[in-house]
Amino acid sequence: MDNRPIGVFDSGFGGLTIAKELMNQLTNEKIVYFGDTARIPYGSKSKETIIKYSAQIIRFLQTKDVKAIVIACGTASALALEAVREQFDLPIIGVVEPAAMSAVEETRNNRIGIIGTDGTIASKSYEQVIYKQTTDIEVFSTACPLFVPLVEEGWLEDEVTIEVAKRYLSVLQDREIDTLILGCTHYPLLAKVIGQIMGDVTLINPANETAAVLQKLLDTSKLKHEIQVPTHEFYVSDCANKFETFAKIILGKEKLPVQQIHIENY
Amino acid sequence: MDNRPIGVFDSGFGGLTIAKELMNQLTNEKIVYFGDTARIPYGSKSKETIIKYSAQIIRFLQTKDVKAIVIACGTASALALEAVREQFDLPIIGVVEPAAMSAVEETRNNRIGIIGTDGTIASKSYEQVIYKQTTDIEVFSTACPLFVPLVEEGWLEDEVTIEVAKRYLSVLQDREIDTLILGCTHYPLLAKVIGQIMGDVTLINPANETAAVLQKLLDTSKLKHEIQVPTHEFYVSDCANKFETFAKIILGKEKLPVQQIHIENY
Repeated sequence: MDNRPIGVFDSGFGGLTIAKELMNQLTNEKIVYFGDTARIPYGSKSKETIIKYSAQIIRFLQTKDVKAIVIACGTASALALEAVREQFDLPIIGVVEPAAMSAVEETRNNRIGIIGTDGTIASKSYEQVIYKQTTDIEVFSTACPLFVPLVEEGWLEDEVTIEVAKRYLSVLQDREIDTLILGCTHYPLLAKVIGQIMGDVTLINPANETAAVLQKLLDTSKLKHEIQVPTHEFYVSDCANKFETFAKIILGKEKLPVQQIHIENY
Repeated sequence: MDNRPIGVFDSGFGGLTIAKELMNQLTNEKIVYFGDTARIPYGSKSKETIIKYSAQIIRFLQTKDVKAIVIACGTASALALEAVREQFDLPIIGVVEPAAMSAVEETRNNRIGIIGTDGTIASKSYEQVIYKQTTDIEVFSTACPLFVPLVEEGWLEDEVTIEVAKRYLSVLQDREIDTLILGCTHYPLLAKVIGQIMGDVTLINPANETAAVLQKLLDTSKLKHEIQVPTHEFYVSDCANKFETFAKIILGKEKLPVQQIHIENY
């Protein structure tokens, strides 16, 4: 038994879709969540900067005595996972590996699509994981830079969002993919629109797969928490009130204390 | 005569629309530009954070021995100008005052509209400047959070942009404004779309007015540069290559060296 919390971080509130799934699947575990709301979005930033930000956040989460880290951000998982695994001596998992491996399992016609931010798509991280498993699969990817600001505007099923999604997804539609990875934690909030446009395609939401991988890690490493009703903690680098509003909606909580910290000091 | 350069900064490349106008109107002056590309966008961040970022940038620009600062960012002008004027002992001008005063001069029916980021609109900064001049004017404002990401996507005259603009501007259309302040440095790049939707309304581009105010400041403070062909300098906090591409287009230059620095160290 190890009763320390799990550290979870994202560029903002998108990673709460991951945190929620962790809370559902690992009911005894306490989560310390950090949203980097001062420096959001990560999708357009360079690899060097994303590694620096991720390391600062992990150092902050270590002050909360976490036993493991979940990078609940597609861009940071794609660009920084390898570098921070080398820097830090604790288990770190990202969302790329679990989602990519699940897509490989799901596809029947061996044609997988990936959507994500500019940074994630340019990194080819999903492709790397997929091609490590098998080279029999064809992968088609495209960046959707406006999806994050559209989600943040709250236009989840809006006609503008539908038009933008049609535009971005058109390059995938004639590729006959049967599986599509939602490679950014904001994108599951657009799953309805994306599903309607893509039709008979399995959407891979990294949240489910990431929670399963964490569960396995805690089992095999004897890091599981004993039975408890955990009190999760939430920290941000800016705009605590706005974050709290979103977090209450996503997590379905009435009370949810969010504290603002100076992430640059870590 | 004072041959030191002018420091100009923005959250990214949007402020280059201001820098370009300064280069056109103040041909002898050397400009040192900083674009905070690692921490863009500023529009959704808190006042406290914008003040901290602005102070860091001014400290960096002081290492380049600047004689005056132009805050070429609507949000930072709206939220941080007063605070940094108190902190630093050099002339600092923003884009809010010049644009607001120009709108007061331009309006014939005393009905002015303002569009900007969430932060700028919530700050009521334009209203404060306008009401200092006269209380006979009615002001109507609305935030347009998707305009910056649409400009960054390059969809300047796209049908999606037109639809988003129609949506945002509809609240201003039945207000009978005759003057509209483009309260964010990205927005002049959407002037064509905005103008078509708003019809017979004068659009105030802060760039022209800000350059005129700086000219006056240099004249009265004896800070003018002697005749020269200036070599401007460009610094960013991330993605120097991407910035360079945009900057070459906006400024119409073939060569333009951009250097990346660690802004958090200032």
